[in-house]
Amino acid sequence: MAMKTTRKQNYPEWYQNVVSEADMAENSVSPGCMVMKAWGYGIWERIQRVLDEKIKETGHENYYFPMFIPLSFFQKEADHVEGFAKEMAVVTHSRLVNEEGKLKPSSPLEEPLIVRPTSETIIADSFAKWVKSYRDLPILLNQWANVVRWEMRPRLFLRTREFLWQEGHTVHASMKEAENETVKMLEVYRDFAENALAMPDLTGRKPEHEKFPGAIDTYCIEAMMQDGKALQAGTSHFLGQNFAKSANIKFVNQNNEPEYAYTTSWGVSTRLIGGAIMCHADDDGMVVPPHIAPYQVIIVPIIKKAEDAERVNAYVEQLAKQLKIQTAFGEKIRVKVDARDKSSVDKSWEWIRKGAPMVCEIGPRDVDSQGLMLKERIYLGTSDGKKIMAANDFVMQVGKRLEDLQAQMYSKAKTRLDANIRTDIKTPEQFAAYFANSNEWIEDNKQGKVAFVRGKWCADPETEELLKAMKITIRCIPFEQSGTTGPCLLTGKDATMDVIYARSY
Amino acid sequence: MAMKTTRKQNYPEWYQNVVSEADMAENSVSPGCMVMKAWGYGIWERIQRVLDEKIKETGHENYYFPMFIPLSFFQKEADHVEGFAKEMAVVTHSRLVNEEGKLKPSSPLEEPLIVRPTSETIIADSFAKWVKSYRDLPILLNQWANVVRWEMRPRLFLRTREFLWQEGHTVHASMKEAENETVKMLEVYRDFAENALAMPDLTGRKPEHEKFPGAIDTYCIEAMMQDGKALQAGTSHFLGQNFAKSANIKFVNQNNEPEYAYTTSWGVSTRLIGGAIMCHADDDGMVVPPHIAPYQVIIVPIIKKAEDAERVNAYVEQLAKQLKIQTAFGEKIRVKVDARDKSSVDKSWEWIRKGAPMVCEIGPRDVDSQGLMLKERIYLGTSDGKKIMAANDFVMQVGKRLEDLQAQMYSKAKTRLDANIRTDIKTPEQFAAYFANSNEWIEDNKQGKVAFVRGKWCADPETEELLKAMKITIRCIPFEQSGTTGPCLLTGKDATMDVIYARSY
Repeated sequence: MAMKTTRKQNYPEWYQNVVSEADMAENSVSPGCMVMKAWGYGIWERIQRVLDEKIKETGHENYYFPMFIPLSFFQKEADHVEGFAKEMAVVTHSRLVNEEGKLKPSSPLEEPLIVRPTSETIIADSFAKWVKSYRDLPILLNQWANVVRWEMRPRLFLRTREFLWQEGHTVHASMKEAENETVKMLEVYRDFAENALAMPDLTGRKPEHEKFPGAIDTYCIEAMMQDGKALQAGTSHFLGQNFAKSANIKFVNQNNEPEYAYTTSWGVSTRLIGGAIMCHADDDGMVVPPHIAPYQVIIVPIIKKAEDAERVNAYVEQLAKQLKIQTAFGEKIRVKVDARDKSSVDKSWEWIRKGAPMVCEIGPRDVDSQGLMLKERIYLGTSDGKKIMAANDFVMQVGKRLEDLQAQMYSKAKTRLDANIRTDIKTPEQFAAYFANSNEWIEDNKQGKVAFVRGKWCADPETEELLKAMKITIRCIPFEQSGTTGPCLLTGKDATMDVIYARSY
Repeated sequence: MAMKTTRKQNYPEWYQNVVSEADMAENSVSPGCMVMKAWGYGIWERIQRVLDEKIKETGHENYYFPMFIPLSFFQKEADHVEGFAKEMAVVTHSRLVNEEGKLKPSSPLEEPLIVRPTSETIIADSFAKWVKSYRDLPILLNQWANVVRWEMRPRLFLRTREFLWQEGHTVHASMKEAENETVKMLEVYRDFAENALAMPDLTGRKPEHEKFPGAIDTYCIEAMMQDGKALQAGTSHFLGQNFAKSANIKFVNQNNEPEYAYTTSWGVSTRLIGGAIMCHADDDGMVVPPHIAPYQVIIVPIIKKAEDAERVNAYVEQLAKQLKIQTAFGEKIRVKVDARDKSSVDKSWEWIRKGAPMVCEIGPRDVDSQGLMLKERIYLGTSDGKKIMAANDFVMQVGKRLEDLQAQMYSKAKTRLDANIRTDIKTPEQFAAYFANSNEWIEDNKQGKVAFVRGKWCADPETEELLKAMKITIRCIPFEQSGTTGPCLLTGKDATMDVIYARSY
């Protein structure tokens, strides 16, 4: 039972439908912000739990810095403020007064405060205080926080004015070490996207004009959505000595000489959830990768006659108990018995829309046969969509099955990505003809009309305008370069650099 | 080696010392806000982990609502805005412009936005949309978030302008059910404070003038600090139909009639960390209850000659591995090997200041004897302060020992609380004489000069002024009432209500 809009009919509308039908989030009365509901926030909690462990394993500790940054801090790094000034929430007053029955801001602040769009400036200030000698380095920290960027065209998860993220910030004694950190954390993101989100990504460096404001180099992971557009899923910035100089992060090195330190920053956000939706959801709703599903197995008891209730419920409770001690992805399995007073058909459909990996339906006949009806979300509508299984077999297999479902989701997305990076486009004419097409849904295992192009770029400043006019972006400069020379796909000039071109979110 | 200020010398200064020597937090350049550092934030993460589980076990799900609340929302509930209007951060602009080399706020918002001081108003608006029928009820949700109240005298953890908390919000079909929820969550807090923080609390209802703005009833848990002052550690509010009426949360009841719903809200914050400090820390620094310690066991290798390094490190790694598979409080034990290039004496002292429950020192002789030197934080400076143990014995005992340390911390705090609730003060004269004393540190197992008084209160409006003048507050009206009559300790009038009087944070 497909949703009212399919991917083919209208991809953007389909996306909104998935979010709302899966009850993940909705627009808020607070302009441009969203309410994350239990299923959407539950996915975020899983992302946090899994990624936080990786961030800690790589030696980082969590801190928390204030969300208000004094305005003057943004004077210090010119590129940085230039990049964010147009989208900053500014706090100017600390009180309300009632004037003629209407509330008015009062008690103006001496210095306005900016609600953090990102925390480089305020964290650099702490680094400057904490770092004295090379012995204090490196400092490797991370924070989970909300940030604000005044987006003019907000979209749930993909671009909201307030969003949740983690931002890592590190400070090092040498350029090399800071560069290594930047690339290491990019790899953590790539691995996380691949293994937890089942979302394959291309990795590389951003071109100059797409860098983080204030960075020397920005590295990124870029995923392909089902309409062939790119989604920047995570970024890692080598900041060189830029913020060290503006905030005065100086240390005495091993030769007893004062030196500016080197910093990095890196982050992923609730946008990843938007990415997971556009990578995995189908015309029936969301499909959540088992590793990050708030619940992996839903049990729906089917009780049509009151006299069946007791034995069905007892059987269900027993099954849930056995499932909860099984493991998948090295963790206990997350099981929910949906005992709400509602038709079992409606309940099953709710969980399909939400994309719970497995739904087990259990009625009196299943109790008699010590079995269950298993529905695995990714097989919905196929001949594998429903399986009658012995409960014991299911309990023994559940962990492995969940891991298999995850692997299949990844493999499907990887096939799409691989089939849709065009490398046969060699001239500006071919390039323009290719991108004259609009993005549309790409059927599984097919090559779509328009997606990614891997080709040459001459890096001339004029190309920036050409890209804007065509509404195309350079997603990244892949780490592996062919070393060949050919015509730039924008200008036709000789170029050696390989880049990934695509439309993007 | 006591810190530079002891509790007896200057309790407030001692508190600041503990926070800074334990490297838990520091004041920020962002006025009135704090930077939570790894050890302080690590304790918060533990609090979150343990409490979140209890909140979910009681049927609540986590959501996330925007931190910006349109100003007009505060017009709706008169008491609510009255209570918070004086301390609200107001966002008025969404952009900065550069005028003569200085950044200025620009693009004024049509309607100013308030940075949430608490989220009743914006969550009630969602409830109003979601609730149609009694079948939609109850809705039980919680969020972990940052909030802002423009405190004029900020103190680390206890009162900062931005702080972190959880806020539960629920909506119910009946008054009774909402009241039960309010009391149930208070009990979750009491249990959490007792078992996770080792901090005993009194529970009860707040007097009218101390209620949450907009509540019908506020219930609270109140802890006693080592100087006999009270700390409000958590509150749970029965909001009746107040917010339902102002936000129009209406449902069709089982008789098919429209009715306003009943709501509750409840929260605890990073203030709990301030409470844990003032409840448990001593003149040597912080003492963290093992249940919420980011690391429970620290291993400090002692390597004086380079040739010992390999075998000491191998032994330490092996021990750490064995310890990490042991459990305490139903969770794997958290172990850290402190291998920093620093003197082992300095390292041990750092962990004492931080209050890590156990430090194991291991040198070459311990490797030879397959032993270790165990220092348990709460015994520091006593004859039990250092124990030489066989490593195998320690591994087998570690879980139980940690649980014992926790129990002893609780028992010590409970003894202090019980010994310092005066019930023998019966007249306004005695009362005034008692509170003529200043609060000061109460030695273990002793009765201090001034702490809590349990006695009568007549509830006359004039008592509010008397309390203010004496800088005393009524902490709560305990659930268990004696039913006797006696003179109000403020006015001398006949009164039957028993209350807890104290100075407070």
